[in-house]
Amino acid sequence: MVTPTAALVDYILGSRLDAIPDDVRHEGKRALVNIVGCALGGADHPVMDIAIAALGPHAGPPVSAVIGRRERFDPLLASLLNGVSSHVHDYDDTLPKNYIHASSPVASALLAYASVNEVSGPDFLHAFILGFEIVSRIGNATYPAHYEAGWHSTGSIGVFGAAVAVGRLLGLDAQRMTWAIGLAATQGAGIREMFGSMGKGFHPGSSAQRGYMAALLAEKGFTSGRLPLEGPRGFAAVTSAEYDLGKLTVDLGRHFELTDNTYKPFPCGIVVHPTIDACIQLREKHGFSAEEVEAVELRVAPLVKDLCNKKEISVGLEGKFSIYHAAAIGLGRGKAALAEFTDEAVNDPALKRIRLLAEANGDPAVHEDGVVVTVRLKDGREVGMHLSESLGNLKRPLSDAQLEAKFRDQAKVVTPDQADEAITACWIIDQLDDAARLIAPCIPR
Amino acid sequence: MVTPTAALVDYILGSRLDAIPDDVRHEGKRALVNIVGCALGGADHPVMDIAIAALGPHAGPPVSAVIGRRERFDPLLASLLNGVSSHVHDYDDTLPKNYIHASSPVASALLAYASVNEVSGPDFLHAFILGFEIVSRIGNATYPAHYEAGWHSTGSIGVFGAAVAVGRLLGLDAQRMTWAIGLAATQGAGIREMFGSMGKGFHPGSSAQRGYMAALLAEKGFTSGRLPLEGPRGFAAVTSAEYDLGKLTVDLGRHFELTDNTYKPFPCGIVVHPTIDACIQLREKHGFSAEEVEAVELRVAPLVKDLCNKKEISVGLEGKFSIYHAAAIGLGRGKAALAEFTDEAVNDPALKRIRLLAEANGDPAVHEDGVVVTVRLKDGREVGMHLSESLGNLKRPLSDAQLEAKFRDQAKVVTPDQADEAITACWIIDQLDDAARLIAPCIPR
Repeated sequence: MVTPTAALVDYILGSRLDAIPDDVRHEGKRALVNIVGCALGGADHPVMDIAIAALGPHAGPPVSAVIGRRERFDPLLASLLNGVSSHVHDYDDTLPKNYIHASSPVASALLAYASVNEVSGPDFLHAFILGFEIVSRIGNATYPAHYEAGWHSTGSIGVFGAAVAVGRLLGLDAQRMTWAIGLAATQGAGIREMFGSMGKGFHPGSSAQRGYMAALLAEKGFTSGRLPLEGPRGFAAVTSAEYDLGKLTVDLGRHFELTDNTYKPFPCGIVVHPTIDACIQLREKHGFSAEEVEAVELRVAPLVKDLCNKKEISVGLEGKFSIYHAAAIGLGRGKAALAEFTDEAVNDPALKRIRLLAEANGDPAVHEDGVVVTVRLKDGREVGMHLSESLGNLKRPLSDAQLEAKFRDQAKVVTPDQADEAITACWIIDQLDDAARLIAPCIPR
Repeated sequence: MVTPTAALVDYILGSRLDAIPDDVRHEGKRALVNIVGCALGGADHPVMDIAIAALGPHAGPPVSAVIGRRERFDPLLASLLNGVSSHVHDYDDTLPKNYIHASSPVASALLAYASVNEVSGPDFLHAFILGFEIVSRIGNATYPAHYEAGWHSTGSIGVFGAAVAVGRLLGLDAQRMTWAIGLAATQGAGIREMFGSMGKGFHPGSSAQRGYMAALLAEKGFTSGRLPLEGPRGFAAVTSAEYDLGKLTVDLGRHFELTDNTYKPFPCGIVVHPTIDACIQLREKHGFSAEEVEAVELRVAPLVKDLCNKKEISVGLEGKFSIYHAAAIGLGRGKAALAEFTDEAVNDPALKRIRLLAEANGDPAVHEDGVVVTVRLKDGREVGMHLSESLGNLKRPLSDAQLEAKFRDQAKVVTPDQADEAITACWIIDQLDDAARLIAPCIPR
């Protein structure tokens, strides 16, 4: 009988890009536009300087670029740094089926690999799609038990995607690809206790680095267990109280999980997205200013109030999980980009005023992806709306143009021309003779 | 209330070597003699060449020595390599309370750190004792659920010891030591599916490297969660179905887990140790040769037969878990050193003959740490013994002289004079002004 791992390996080795449907390839490009933009947006975050100060002195030959940075490091450290920057703003993609942010670990390793090895654009896209698929499927097979146990699956499962993607580009044979998956399985880590600290952004970075290492070791003959996913002491059994290995291979090569991927319109917790979305729409429709807002009532799912009931806040990171700050920026500024989640924004008197006067009530009738907003203005008008599908979810996906705008908003460390060049490179990645043409415009000049 | 993590941090920062009892300090030296010897013994194992071929090209400045090797690498890769070599022969120490091999991850990181930083001998020994203690206590708190789930706790928990030991030498303050423990918690990994492959030896190496990284990151201000061990999504809850956090701190600074550490007399699975031990004793007492053995009957605990019922074997690694090979080397050679677990030994006709004629029977009356051996010789004599405590366990610990002999047997990559110098350095480590004096004689000339 073919084991699930063997079936995955067989698929990874036999897959051809031209057999992957156009819509999947396009979704792969959308994911690249999104994740490269996020890496640029996080590239000058203080966490990057800290990581570089700590690990840079021990880095290998400075051959690999890091997205959004001038320094070069060995590709393993570059993988880690790409992963940290692309996740640190909580702005990357999300798989609603299992809450994994799959692009960061996969793309972070691939971008480093392609920076030091010649990789054609089609091969790069193909490896990305395969890595993404493996992460998603291991996520599906172990969800929800794995996540509920407290694993941050972007780290604990992301490592597989980096191993498979780099392993595919290294041309590993079936035995070595199995070892690479095994060495990924035995490095999977990352716990949710880190949420709210730099440790969260560390996870996709670390998994990119460890997955890359797994592929390198396997290539040279470093052996690992034969049943890394399905064995009695394999990844699924060890980390997940319940799991369904059938999900690893069902419709493999026919259904691609990339088509279920979502992209955040706002750099903050997904649960405050509906509030921001509705408040922006109200402001656009009724044309009021921040000063005119006199009262705000939010009705949200009880879980959302539980998670985001933060009014007394002073740093930007806290704003990412405050339902009141969400209302304040939507009503007060009509947008929610990186600038709305800085310390400055949280302490902006106009926003603070709205945050403090806003009220939120849990209402079991409201879905987690919805909100009911009522706003009273100083002129006596009362305006409101009931939002049931939030921008960015699978039913209201960001358009290609919106993804481009999100990219440009984040790409402050490069010139607008460079940003355009990088965006174009993502859209035509399958026509590029060298994937490095996507990387070059992402380096500050 | 002081959290368990805070209590551990407080202890680590406030501990003084001169407040640690003499017997504990001596046991720390014994653990060093043992683990440095194991690192020398594994230094020329093929797995080391593979790891170096894969990761060496991405290594940082070649400043750190690796025990038993001529190459130098950055201290993070050196930590990994020291960890692989010191565990690859399954010859390092064991904590009977939780089956963790605690010395490898801790010493592997410390030896790399001390190779590139000036560390006094007393500080080195002190950091080792502290790292060992933390690993042991986290192991106790999560045993048996953690191990039974399938974690190879030498990897998943070893990482804490490396972080704490290096963190102590870096002089981390309480906040940073907490972050280091958090960054260790979120990197803990290693599954038992890897047993029987190179993945097993990878675990202490990887945990040494990751723990060292955790300390470096924390030093520069990389934050992590506040309750890494005890939080609802912390290490214990995520990885262990049941746990007892009280064991983290009970008698902390009064009872030291080092005093419960054991050292293997033979480089193989602990469960075949009683058979080897008894067979060596029989041969010594009765003075027969391999050729004279005509029949062998072993009565062992049923679990031991289950685990080690391997007769048709052809490679040395398999011999480590064959009860029949164990009898063959004990009766046929009267010893069980590294040379008895090579491919050559497994295929030695004289040993193979005994292996094939030996019989093993499970007997619930025999303890796992015991064996009943009966041997019939060609001259008609029947000799036998019932062993109830195996050499190397807590009741029959290896003597200092036996540890030295074990070291010398493994130290083939350096000269006998170097081996003596290294052994002496371990015994007088708390009088050395520079711990590098332990490392220098471990490098082949």
